[in-house]
Amino acid sequence: MDESFATLIFKDDTLTLIDQRILPAEVSYVTCKTFEDVEFAIRDMIVRGAPAIGSAAAYGVYLAALQCPDDADFKKACKFLSLARPTAVNLGWAINRMLATYEHNIKQPRAELLNLLLAEADSIREEDIKTNKLMSRIGAAVVPQKATILTHCNTGALATAGWGTALGVIKTAFYDKKDIFVYADETRPRFQGARLTAWELMEAKIPSKLIPDSAAATLIRDGKIDLVLLGGDRVAANGDVANKLGTFALSVICKAYGIPFYSVVPVSTIDFSIPDGSAIPIEERDAEEVTHVQGVQVAPKGMDVYNPAFDVTPHQNLTGIITEKGIIYPPFKENIERLERGETL
Amino acid sequence: MDESFATLIFKDDTLTLIDQRILPAEVSYVTCKTFEDVEFAIRDMIVRGAPAIGSAAAYGVYLAALQCPDDADFKKACKFLSLARPTAVNLGWAINRMLATYEHNIKQPRAELLNLLLAEADSIREEDIKTNKLMSRIGAAVVPQKATILTHCNTGALATAGWGTALGVIKTAFYDKKDIFVYADETRPRFQGARLTAWELMEAKIPSKLIPDSAAATLIRDGKIDLVLLGGDRVAANGDVANKLGTFALSVICKAYGIPFYSVVPVSTIDFSIPDGSAIPIEERDAEEVTHVQGVQVAPKGMDVYNPAFDVTPHQNLTGIITEKGIIYPPFKENIERLERGETL
Repeated sequence: MDESFATLIFKDDTLTLIDQRILPAEVSYVTCKTFEDVEFAIRDMIVRGAPAIGSAAAYGVYLAALQCPDDADFKKACKFLSLARPTAVNLGWAINRMLATYEHNIKQPRAELLNLLLAEADSIREEDIKTNKLMSRIGAAVVPQKATILTHCNTGALATAGWGTALGVIKTAFYDKKDIFVYADETRPRFQGARLTAWELMEAKIPSKLIPDSAAATLIRDGKIDLVLLGGDRVAANGDVANKLGTFALSVICKAYGIPFYSVVPVSTIDFSIPDGSAIPIEERDAEEVTHVQGVQVAPKGMDVYNPAFDVTPHQNLTGIITEKGIIYPPFKENIERLERGETL
Repeated sequence: MDESFATLIFKDDTLTLIDQRILPAEVSYVTCKTFEDVEFAIRDMIVRGAPAIGSAAAYGVYLAALQCPDDADFKKACKFLSLARPTAVNLGWAINRMLATYEHNIKQPRAELLNLLLAEADSIREEDIKTNKLMSRIGAAVVPQKATILTHCNTGALATAGWGTALGVIKTAFYDKKDIFVYADETRPRFQGARLTAWELMEAKIPSKLIPDSAAATLIRDGKIDLVLLGGDRVAANGDVANKLGTFALSVICKAYGIPFYSVVPVSTIDFSIPDGSAIPIEERDAEEVTHVQGVQVAPKGMDVYNPAFDVTPHQNLTGIITEKGIIYPPFKENIERLERGETL
């Protein structure tokens, strides 16, 4: 019941990534032998999805250590990696975790230090898969029998080191024989829903339909959606969630029609240092993502574009945030504080 | 200040249409010499936009009369034309107007009957342009100085016999030197915003940006949109508006954040016979519109798709409906009844 493909593999000092820019038209792999390769892979979205970016960056830090015996060079490389994309907090989280391992073992012989860094990167990847399975089990409890679920963007094995966050919950509910049906938003402009989620849904044989993003609203109004499950790229301390563009609009419509709306994220996606969503940096990406589709032009040459990759959903529009430590319900700020203090939810 | 292109031209018993399926990548024209050609052009969206469909269909009826000396054959041809697309009421409205001219002159010599039908089709086309200019003038009154306007789909010269409905209002406000700025939704799945509206905005040199449909919500919440102006394909007697997919979602978000939201339509788009939006037939179109973009595949082969071409915005979410007879404000049902009785708004 696991995937027939791997999002990222690290072997012989090489990070191999499935190329998510062109899936499912082509299933091909890209190899990264340097931290610069990893930075490019993250920036150009060969690998995407907050947890997958974290795992890839961890190996990027290991490669940086391999390339940079000099401490200053290594730190510069880590900084460079951390700027590949601004919104997903998992990037900085994974790099900081690797840096902590580095600082803690700086006195070790170089070979030993490198071994410890590689082990830490492996841990980040392995823990991500375990975390996803745990939160999927927790999240599946909110999925009713015969539920019709709406999801947005891709939150499956491709968005993570394996298994998935929101799509992990969906797969778990499906394998629990809950007789579910899934509507997948295509997710403009990069079609992660059409290209990646549709592919993962078909691989898992989950009954589903792909829809233009704008079709979700009528389905929600007409009572055809029982709940929304989607991911998150950075959760603020008050529960505001930055996620793929389109999430906020969905949340407003779900709120207007009383439909449960959950973000599914590992605790590593919570940025305890950011008080609310207004402080989350929102990445603006190239106009060409909107004016062209896989190289085909769909807008007149020279047309100006506004292309924010993410939007912020206020915590007031969320039913809950599903994590591996349990489901965070309102009051979000208080419950996220409890989580930060290590208390049970 | 008029367009450098023509949406539809009728000359020498031939309807020439700009091919809106491939604009702006290619500016090419399709000729229709039979009613079957016209039916195909409407169904395949060579010509689209409720008023433009009406004008094209009127010439289709004239061609049907030319091809079918037999009354039963002619009526069958008209029925066939009327089924080309289900949602826009202007199709049936124009055909019925042509049929009334036919019935009224059935005793005339055939050559005379044909002349009268051609004259009626010409009238429908010419009246549409006049109507658009009139409602643009009326609508421009609600556009404040320095307004930032959001629009959806294409409602310009291409959607009509000329000039446009909502985009006509926008052009009028621009030529009135109101220093406006326009955000144009790309309008998935067929990209009428990216392909057609962006092209018309650039032709008119109106400052504007193209956005993915999902980006509108954040702009609305953040107070960056002063008003929304868009078209309509069928308005029910209570003011519910069927329009291009995506309109309903926008209306919910505008309502939540108190942003004025106007549908701009000729009175011919009002279907006085339909009590509310639930009775408006919503066209479902081919999966390929979602799975492919200009022939390029973006979803895995075999993925199921739900592709409604329109959605219904309840009148409660509208600020007003701008027509050539004035602006219809709430209570919509009562004011639409007054319009039907020929009273002033």
